[in-house]
Amino acid sequence: MENPASIEDSGYHVYPDARRRAAFINANIGGGTGAYSSSRGLDIVREDVAEFIMNRDGRLETSTGGRYSLPENIFLSDGASPSVSRVLQLLIRSPIDGIMIPIPQYPLYSATISLLGGSQLQYYLDESKGWALTGEELERCYETSVAQGRIPRALVVINPGNPTGQVLPIENMQEIIRFCHSKSIALLADEVYQENVYFKESKPFHSFKKVKHEMGPSYANLELFSFHSVSKGFIGECGKRGGYVEMDGIGQDVMDEYYKLSSINLCPNVLGQLMVSLMVNPPKPGDESFEQFAKEKDEVYSSLQRRAKLVVSTLNSLPGIKCNSADGAMYAFPTIDMPKKAIDAATAKKQLPDAFYCHELLETTGICAIPGSGFGQVPGTWHIRLTFLPREQHMTDMLANLSKFHKNFMAKYQ
Amino acid sequence: MENPASIEDSGYHVYPDARRRAAFINANIGGGTGAYSSSRGLDIVREDVAEFIMNRDGRLETSTGGRYSLPENIFLSDGASPSVSRVLQLLIRSPIDGIMIPIPQYPLYSATISLLGGSQLQYYLDESKGWALTGEELERCYETSVAQGRIPRALVVINPGNPTGQVLPIENMQEIIRFCHSKSIALLADEVYQENVYFKESKPFHSFKKVKHEMGPSYANLELFSFHSVSKGFIGECGKRGGYVEMDGIGQDVMDEYYKLSSINLCPNVLGQLMVSLMVNPPKPGDESFEQFAKEKDEVYSSLQRRAKLVVSTLNSLPGIKCNSADGAMYAFPTIDMPKKAIDAATAKKQLPDAFYCHELLETTGICAIPGSGFGQVPGTWHIRLTFLPREQHMTDMLANLSKFHKNFMAKYQ
Repeated sequence: MENPASIEDSGYHVYPDARRRAAFINANIGGGTGAYSSSRGLDIVREDVAEFIMNRDGRLETSTGGRYSLPENIFLSDGASPSVSRVLQLLIRSPIDGIMIPIPQYPLYSATISLLGGSQLQYYLDESKGWALTGEELERCYETSVAQGRIPRALVVINPGNPTGQVLPIENMQEIIRFCHSKSIALLADEVYQENVYFKESKPFHSFKKVKHEMGPSYANLELFSFHSVSKGFIGECGKRGGYVEMDGIGQDVMDEYYKLSSINLCPNVLGQLMVSLMVNPPKPGDESFEQFAKEKDEVYSSLQRRAKLVVSTLNSLPGIKCNSADGAMYAFPTIDMPKKAIDAATAKKQLPDAFYCHELLETTGICAIPGSGFGQVPGTWHIRLTFLPREQHMTDMLANLSKFHKNFMAKYQ
Repeated sequence: MENPASIEDSGYHVYPDARRRAAFINANIGGGTGAYSSSRGLDIVREDVAEFIMNRDGRLETSTGGRYSLPENIFLSDGASPSVSRVLQLLIRSPIDGIMIPIPQYPLYSATISLLGGSQLQYYLDESKGWALTGEELERCYETSVAQGRIPRALVVINPGNPTGQVLPIENMQEIIRFCHSKSIALLADEVYQENVYFKESKPFHSFKKVKHEMGPSYANLELFSFHSVSKGFIGECGKRGGYVEMDGIGQDVMDEYYKLSSINLCPNVLGQLMVSLMVNPPKPGDESFEQFAKEKDEVYSSLQRRAKLVVSTLNSLPGIKCNSADGAMYAFPTIDMPKKAIDAATAKKQLPDAFYCHELLETTGICAIPGSGFGQVPGTWHIRLTFLPREQHMTDMLANLSKFHKNFMAKYQ
């Protein structure tokens, strides 16, 4: 239909609550999305975010008795990435300042730390324990870094994990909080996959903020930066570039500096800000659109859950592949027991073995996987990252092609 | 109307060419704006930008015979600011690397150079000559900087000027190009106000790219970065955050590094990218919406032109104020001959005299002006920046209030 006469003619049904909401937004942001907002982001959106955080964590007060979430501690950005970059910029003063990052990790962290001239302090997630984050490994990383003359300034935790898909248990989170508190370092909680949790009963998502405040007022001064984004969840509106950081236990002077940093780029895009509002304040029971919203959301999640299970079980059925459960996020991150001949063939091509595998896979099947070396891995181990975002009807074919390719690859190089 | 049944019922008329265009975009970006684009920006938008640049400059070929503008040399960003920041990031390697910036200047430059740990090398615009940029002053700035152990890496020129409103004559631009070429430094051309030019006959806008290529192939290797944005012009869609940099004479290795830098933040927001497309590829004669578009555009520009003249002539009628003609951009930047008693009163309040003036103006009249000290000015001179963006029907009242305030201020402190 090239030239529909109205939104409805285009096949969209616009619910009355959506229209009421648009009218409310319009009335509260000056009648359009064309003007700069505050560098912090729109007031009405930061209010929505604060409400969302309070509802999500089920708390009315912080551990010291204040309002649990305040709009003035929330800063919106074009996706979560600029928020992460700015916080790292505040933390890194010189090359000896270090940021503890997980290995494997999402490359935003390693790239930004390099760019800012700081040090990456790498701690390893334990693949044999479902990509667990252990207190001993944090201590090892910290002590080694200090011995090498580095000043650890912050710990980055990605939960649910990217690329590793684990969801941290609450005891583990308490251990992490105690660790950061005892070392007086900041905690950066990358929680952009908080809605992508597939075993809500057995492995629910907890926010670091909630766990921190449940641990009582003695942890109140732990500096916590929590990130979230519209690029993930069940909406996945990554092209809209909406995200935020909430600061908890952060001094006003630091927040003022952050505000100044944000204002150099004027403001995050206003439509991306409104997308944040839609994410954190979705249709509610009683709203005309609620039923359809709940149905679609449920369909998306149950499909993602089925795909998460299917991908992992298929991978584990293949020779030389082991894959932890994908409890959250959108990825399977299996390890491949790479045959010696494949390693030699990769070396001859001046490629890393995991990159060699991904190239062959892409060329043979059209399936795109990302080499584990892009995320970091224990030396001598080789991984690939697969998303389970392709539509369900394509997944079976995709996995059949992947399986066939993998068996041939292993046979060829065994 | 709280609940209109269609776009048309909301009071919008959607022209068939707008619908055709939406369908074209939709078909070429995968059916929606929710997915990440390339970190460079959408192909179709970068094509539009290249076409725009070729049409604007009236050239089919570069000085060495290549296609005049190529999509692969164009990178989109969330407004022009991130493009500027990334280019500065490529240029500044250490504290002795310096960037030549105009004084007065738009604070994005000074802030970003400080953030990146580089040196600001300040050259002064000559207020007595309509904010002219002279070759002698560029030489003075360069030589002084080198004598102080700095390495000048690039020259920033804002044309039309912010906050100064001048439009550079072509001879001056040639001088600047010769200067950069002879010193082997890059030229950063901030041309975001290229459409905001109010005396097109006597003081037209020329792009640095055009002037460079007209100067012949011996200047082909001059490294030129040109910036543009949807935040200015007659659309002023600053909340959409759309902008771009075009690179000319830049090595592939440098562009590859820039691409890598851009990809850390994944991609610019897709709707802002589409806004760039709308700006550079507006309705054309024959399109159904052209007549209304041309009429509205003309109204906006002629109103801005009337306001530019009115603000400047009113300011020049006031005692102790001198203001150069606002030939471009959106600002008047008058100098105020600050009475000694006003300077003393400001000092007593621990304010700079121009900030003191702006505070008094704001408190007395509600009019917001920005102190010249935020942009830099010749020591001992005091300026304010006024935009002429308020609607025309408000301008007369605003100027009457400003005039009354100013006369009282001068009388009080004389």
